[in-house]
Amino acid sequence: MDSKQRYHILFNKINQYNSGTKGITRVAYTNEEQACTQAFMRMCKDEGLDIRIDQCGNAIGRREGRIKGLPPVLMGSHLDTVYQGGKYDGVVGVTAALEVVKRLNEKGIETDHPIEIISFACEESSRFGVSTLGSKAMAGIFDKEKVRYLQDRDGVTLEEALSLCALEIDSIEHASRKSENIKAFFELHVEQGPVLQNENKKVGIVTGIAAPVRFSIRIIGTPSHSGTTPMNMRNDALLGASEIALGLEKVAKNEQNYGTVATVGVLDIQASAMNVVPGEVEIKVDIRGTSLESRQRVLDHLNRTIELVAENRHLEIFSEEIISEEPVLLSTEIISEMEKICKEQEISYKMMPSGAGHDAMNMKKLCPTGLIFVPSVNGLSHHPDEYTDHNDILIGIEVLEKVIIHYSKMDSEI
Amino acid sequence: MDSKQRYHILFNKINQYNSGTKGITRVAYTNEEQACTQAFMRMCKDEGLDIRIDQCGNAIGRREGRIKGLPPVLMGSHLDTVYQGGKYDGVVGVTAALEVVKRLNEKGIETDHPIEIISFACEESSRFGVSTLGSKAMAGIFDKEKVRYLQDRDGVTLEEALSLCALEIDSIEHASRKSENIKAFFELHVEQGPVLQNENKKVGIVTGIAAPVRFSIRIIGTPSHSGTTPMNMRNDALLGASEIALGLEKVAKNEQNYGTVATVGVLDIQASAMNVVPGEVEIKVDIRGTSLESRQRVLDHLNRTIELVAENRHLEIFSEEIISEEPVLLSTEIISEMEKICKEQEISYKMMPSGAGHDAMNMKKLCPTGLIFVPSVNGLSHHPDEYTDHNDILIGIEVLEKVIIHYSKMDSEI
Repeated sequence: MDSKQRYHILFNKINQYNSGTKGITRVAYTNEEQACTQAFMRMCKDEGLDIRIDQCGNAIGRREGRIKGLPPVLMGSHLDTVYQGGKYDGVVGVTAALEVVKRLNEKGIETDHPIEIISFACEESSRFGVSTLGSKAMAGIFDKEKVRYLQDRDGVTLEEALSLCALEIDSIEHASRKSENIKAFFELHVEQGPVLQNENKKVGIVTGIAAPVRFSIRIIGTPSHSGTTPMNMRNDALLGASEIALGLEKVAKNEQNYGTVATVGVLDIQASAMNVVPGEVEIKVDIRGTSLESRQRVLDHLNRTIELVAENRHLEIFSEEIISEEPVLLSTEIISEMEKICKEQEISYKMMPSGAGHDAMNMKKLCPTGLIFVPSVNGLSHHPDEYTDHNDILIGIEVLEKVIIHYSKMDSEI
Repeated sequence: MDSKQRYHILFNKINQYNSGTKGITRVAYTNEEQACTQAFMRMCKDEGLDIRIDQCGNAIGRREGRIKGLPPVLMGSHLDTVYQGGKYDGVVGVTAALEVVKRLNEKGIETDHPIEIISFACEESSRFGVSTLGSKAMAGIFDKEKVRYLQDRDGVTLEEALSLCALEIDSIEHASRKSENIKAFFELHVEQGPVLQNENKKVGIVTGIAAPVRFSIRIIGTPSHSGTTPMNMRNDALLGASEIALGLEKVAKNEQNYGTVATVGVLDIQASAMNVVPGEVEIKVDIRGTSLESRQRVLDHLNRTIELVAENRHLEIFSEEIISEEPVLLSTEIISEMEKICKEQEISYKMMPSGAGHDAMNMKKLCPTGLIFVPSVNGLSHHPDEYTDHNDILIGIEVLEKVIIHYSKMDSEI
C-alpha cells in the first residue's frame, strides 16, 4: 500500500464520525467528536505512541526522542467541525501529523527531540461561540470565567458539555504547558480561501494570522411610508448602511497589498416591509489584516465614512466594538526553513497571511510556530462541498515531514 | 355643543372599538370591526339616514334629495385598521362624512341630489394581503377567485371570514354599482406623509394616486470566508445590492418634480454571518408615481443599474415583477372646484399626488372622484402614534362640506 492509499484510508476513517446528513457535523465535546478523538488515539497507539488526554480534552500522542530531556516538537490541528461542515478543515492537519509519524516509523527514523501530535479540542466556535479552546488552554490563556456559562443551541453550558466528557472546567488550567518544555509547533491546514488555487501554487507558507476586529453598527433614521414620503424628506437607514458598506470595500481594496480585508456579513432592517422606508438598520463589520497599521487605516476611514453618512443623511449612527484581537506574526526562522524546503523539493509556494484564526496563533504565544496551507478548491470552507485534492495534501505532508525532521534534530536552531 | 366638541365625541366613540393594547387594532371582518360598523350605522340612523349594508360589507347611509331620480353624491372612507395602527387612517374620512350630514341637518339644508355616506369594507391589506376590497366590489373589479382562499395569520380564509359576517363571497358581485347611478365620490383622508406639515399647508388637493410597481430582485454572488478571501476575489452580493439601492435613490431624486418615489424596504442576506462574504441577497423594491413616463424612466435606470452591477461585480441578478398597477388621475373639474373653495375660504392648500392607495382610486373607475388630505404629524401612519390635529380635520371637513353642497346641486356639472 502506497502512502497515498494509506492516507486516503486514514482520512476516510476519521470522517466516518458524523452526526449530520448534509456534510460533516462533528461538533466539539459531542459523542461523535469524542468517538473520533478516541479513534485517533487508538491509531496513535497503533503507531507506538504514548497517548494521553489533557484537562481540556486535547488528545496527545508522543513519540520519544533519542536524547533524554529535550523538549518535544509538536504538530497537529483539530478534529471538531462546524455544523454541516466539510471533511478537510482541521482533519487534514491531524491526519497529516499521524501520516508523518507513520513515515518516520516506516523509515525507522529516530529523532533527537520527542515528537508529539495533537488533536486540539473545540477549535470551532460553532457550538459555544468561542474558538480554539484547546490551544488556548495549552497556551495558558483560557479564561474559564468568561466561558463557563456559554450555552449551545440546546441550552447546554460549556461547563456541562465538558462534564459529559469527564472534563472539569475548573481543572482546565492544568492543561497549560511551559514554553521551555516545547521546542516548536507546526500546523498543516486547508487555506479556506481561493488564493493558492488562483495563483496555481501548491503550498502556502503563512507569515502571520490576521485576527479580526469586529463592530456592530446601528444606523437610525426615520421609518416612513414608501409611497407618501418624498425622496428629499427621507432618513433612510438602509441607504446609509449601503454607503458604509461600499465605503468599507473601497478602503479595503486600497489596502489590498497589505492583505487587509473588510466585510459587512450581516445586515438587518428593523420591522422591514416593502412599503416602509427603513428606519433602523444594524450591520456587522469584520476587518482583518496582519498589518496593524493597514487595519488602522481601514478603521479610520470607516469612522470618517460613518461621520459623513450621519451628517449628509441626518442619521444617528452608533458603532460598538465586539472584538479586537491582535494579529500574530509567525516565526521568521521557520518561514525561511519552509521556504528552503519548498525550493529544494521544487514545490510551488506562496508566502501569505492567514485571514482565518487557527490553533497556531495561540501556540505562537508558547513556542516558535509554523503554519502551512494547502489549496482549497474555490476557496470553499465550512461547507459540505469543501474540497482539497489528496495529491495536494500529500505535498503539504511532504513539507511538514521535512520541517519536523529538521527541527527534531538537536542542533537545529530557532 | 360646538362642532368641534361634537366631532371629538364622534371620533372617540368610533375608536372605542379596538382589540389591541398598543394603538388601535380593528382589522377587517373581525368582531370589533363589525361592531364599529354597526355603531356607525346606528349613528347614521340617528341622523335620519336610510341604512343598508351591501354584499361586501360596505355600510351605506343615504339622505334623500329633493328631486326624484337623481344619482347620489357619495362620500366616505373606511373604519378598518392595520394591526397596531392609529386612530386617524380611514376613521377621519368616515366621521367627516357623518359630520357633514350633521351640519346639513342642523342647518336644514336640502340637496337636489341624494347624499350617501359610506364606510368601505376591508380597505387595509393587513389581514388578507389585499386592499380596498369594499371599493373594488362597488366598482365591479373584485376578482373573487383570486382572493377566495387567501388566509389571515390564523389560517382563516377570506371566504370563511366573510361567512362569519353573514356575507357570501359568491354574492359580492351584487355589491357593484353602475356609473350612471352615482354622480361623484369624495374622500377625506390623512396624508400619511410629511409634505403638508413641512410646507405648512392645511389641505392637500390630490391630483392623482400613484399605484406601485414592485419587484423582487435576487442578487447571486459567491459566499466565501470573510478572512481568507482577498478583496479582488469576491463576488459580494450585498455590495451589489447596496449599489442598486443607491442607484435607485439617485434616479428617483432626479424625478422629484414628478413626485415619483422609489424604496428598497426589504433586504435579506441568505445564511448571513459575520465571517461570511454574502453570497445571495434578495431586495424588494417599491416604485410609485402618478406620471407613467417618470415611473418608466426610474424603471429603465434601475434595469441599467442592474446590468452594470451584474457585469462589474460578476453577479447574477434576477428581477421579478410582483405587482404593477396603473396610476389613477383624479377629476380635474373637481380639483378646480376644491381649489376655488380653498381660495374663497382662505385655506392654505397644496396640489399633490397621493403615494398611498385609497378607496378613491377604485371609485374613480365608477364616477368623478375627489380626494382631500389633511396633515399627518411627522408623516407618521400605520402606527399607534399616528396623529392629526382635530382643528386640521375640521378644516378638511369644511372643504368636504362645501364641495358636497356644490355637487349635490342639480345644475352642478362635472
